[in-house]
Amino acid sequence: MNNKPIGVFDSGLGGLTVVKEIKKLLPYENIIYLGDTARVPYGTRSKDVVIKFSFQDADYLISKKVKCLVVACNTASSFAGDLLKKHLTLPVFDVIKPVAEDIKKNRRERKIGIIGTKGTISSHAYKKAILKKVSKVSILEQACPLFVPMIEEGEIKGSLIEKVIEKYLSVFKTKKIDTLVLGCTHYPIIEKEIQNYLGKKVILINPEKLVAEDLKKYLQKNRMLTKSKRKGKIAYLVTDISQSFLKVAEIFLGTKITSKVTKVQID
Amino acid sequence: MNNKPIGVFDSGLGGLTVVKEIKKLLPYENIIYLGDTARVPYGTRSKDVVIKFSFQDADYLISKKVKCLVVACNTASSFAGDLLKKHLTLPVFDVIKPVAEDIKKNRRERKIGIIGTKGTISSHAYKKAILKKVSKVSILEQACPLFVPMIEEGEIKGSLIEKVIEKYLSVFKTKKIDTLVLGCTHYPIIEKEIQNYLGKKVILINPEKLVAEDLKKYLQKNRMLTKSKRKGKIAYLVTDISQSFLKVAEIFLGTKITSKVTKVQID
Repeated sequence: MNNKPIGVFDSGLGGLTVVKEIKKLLPYENIIYLGDTARVPYGTRSKDVVIKFSFQDADYLISKKVKCLVVACNTASSFAGDLLKKHLTLPVFDVIKPVAEDIKKNRRERKIGIIGTKGTISSHAYKKAILKKVSKVSILEQACPLFVPMIEEGEIKGSLIEKVIEKYLSVFKTKKIDTLVLGCTHYPIIEKEIQNYLGKKVILINPEKLVAEDLKKYLQKNRMLTKSKRKGKIAYLVTDISQSFLKVAEIFLGTKITSKVTKVQID
Repeated sequence: MNNKPIGVFDSGLGGLTVVKEIKKLLPYENIIYLGDTARVPYGTRSKDVVIKFSFQDADYLISKKVKCLVVACNTASSFAGDLLKKHLTLPVFDVIKPVAEDIKKNRRERKIGIIGTKGTISSHAYKKAILKKVSKVSILEQACPLFVPMIEEGEIKGSLIEKVIEKYLSVFKTKKIDTLVLGCTHYPIIEKEIQNYLGKKVILINPEKLVAEDLKKYLQKNRMLTKSKRKGKIAYLVTDISQSFLKVAEIFLGTKITSKVTKVQID
C-alpha cells in the first residue's frame, strides 16, 4: 500500500485527458497534476529544450512526494521518456510504451499511421517503440501542428476542422492504413471527426487509456495502490493561468474543475 | 553618435518583420535580435507571465550593451511596454505608441478595428493608447488566435486561411470599419488576403513600419545614430532552435538569414 499521490505532468492542459482516464480506473488515488502552461506547447520545440523542461516538471512533482510519475505529454514522452526512466528512481510511465505493447498484443493490423506534434513525429519515438515489439508492419507518420491550436480554439466540429483533417490525413486514406495512433493528448477531442473522415474500419488507438491501464497494472502488481476507499483528490498546479484556462481545461477533463488551481514556479 | 547596437526583442520570430523595417530605414545600424523561441507564443499567456518574460528579455539585451530597446512583440508591448519604459534607463520603443500617433496625425478615419493575439486584445492597449490621442472614434477589437499558428504553418494563401479570415473579420465587414490595425508581427504576412477580404477602401495600419520610423526619428533627434557607413550587422539570439526555425524566420525577415544564429539562456 502506498497512499502518496500519483504525479502527472504535461506541457499544458491536454494531459487532463490522461487524468480523466486514470480517475476512471483508479478512483481512490490522489493525483497531483502539473501543467507547464507558461511554456506550452512543447510540440514545436527542440529535443534539448523539451528534455530540460521535462526534468524541471518531474523534479517539481518529486519535490511534492509523488509515488510515481506519468508523462502525459506525447512530445515529452517522445524526447524525454527514456531519459526520465533512466535517471529518476521512482517509476515513470510514458504514453509511448503501452501503445507499442497494445499493438503487439491485440492488433493484427499491419498498416499503422501515427499522428502527433512536430516534436513527437520528428523523434520517431512511436515508430521505434512499435518496431521493437512487432515486425512486418508498415508505419506512416504525419505531424499535424494545426490540430492543437484549432482544438484549443474550440474549432472541434464543422467545416474548418474537417478541412484541416483532410489536409493532414488524406495521405492515410491514399495509403489505406488500418490503424491510427492518436499521438497527442488533444486528439481524442476530435476522435469522432477523424473516424468519420477515415471510415469505421480504421482502428484509432488512444494512448491516454493505455497509459492509465499500464499504471493501474503496475501499482496493483507492486502493491502500490492507496488503501483509501474515498474518492481521490486532484491538485491542479500550473505555471500560468490565462484567460481561457478553465474553458480549455474543462474540454480535456470532460467535467468541471472543482478543486483549487494553484499557480507555481518551476524554473 | 552612438555605435552601440539596437536591441530588438520578440516572443519568437515574428519580430523579424520589425528588424526588416529597421534595416530599410537604418541600414548602417547594428542590431541584436532576441527571440524567446523556447517560450513562444506570449499571446496566449497571462499579463503577469508576459511581464516577467519581457523583463528577462530586456535585461538580457541590456547585458549586451544595446543603446536602446525595441519591443517588437505586440503582446509584450501591450502588457509590459509602459512598465519597461518606467523601470529601464535606456530608451524603449513599443509598437503601440506610434500607431496611436499615426492615427492622430494622419487619419481622418473614425471606425477603427484592431486585431491581435488574445493577450494584446484583452489588454486593450491599442484602444487605450488611441483614445488618449483622438476622441470621437469607435474602436472594435478582435482576437485572432488561429492566425499565428496558420502563418507559422505556411497556410498563408488559399481556402483555409480565407475561411479563418472570414471567421475573425466578418464582424468588421458588418460594422463597416474604415481602418484596421494589424496588431501582431505575423499579420503583415497575410496583409493582402486581409485587404482582399475587407476591400480596398479599408486602410491597414502596419505597426512594424511605424515603430521603425519612430526609432529613426528618436535616434536622429538625440544624435544616437551610428557613425558607421557600412552595412550594419544583425546578431540573432534565440532561446531555442527548432526544426522549422530557418523556414519560419525567413518568412518574417523576407530574406535569407546569413549571420550566425546563437542559442542563449535568459531565464
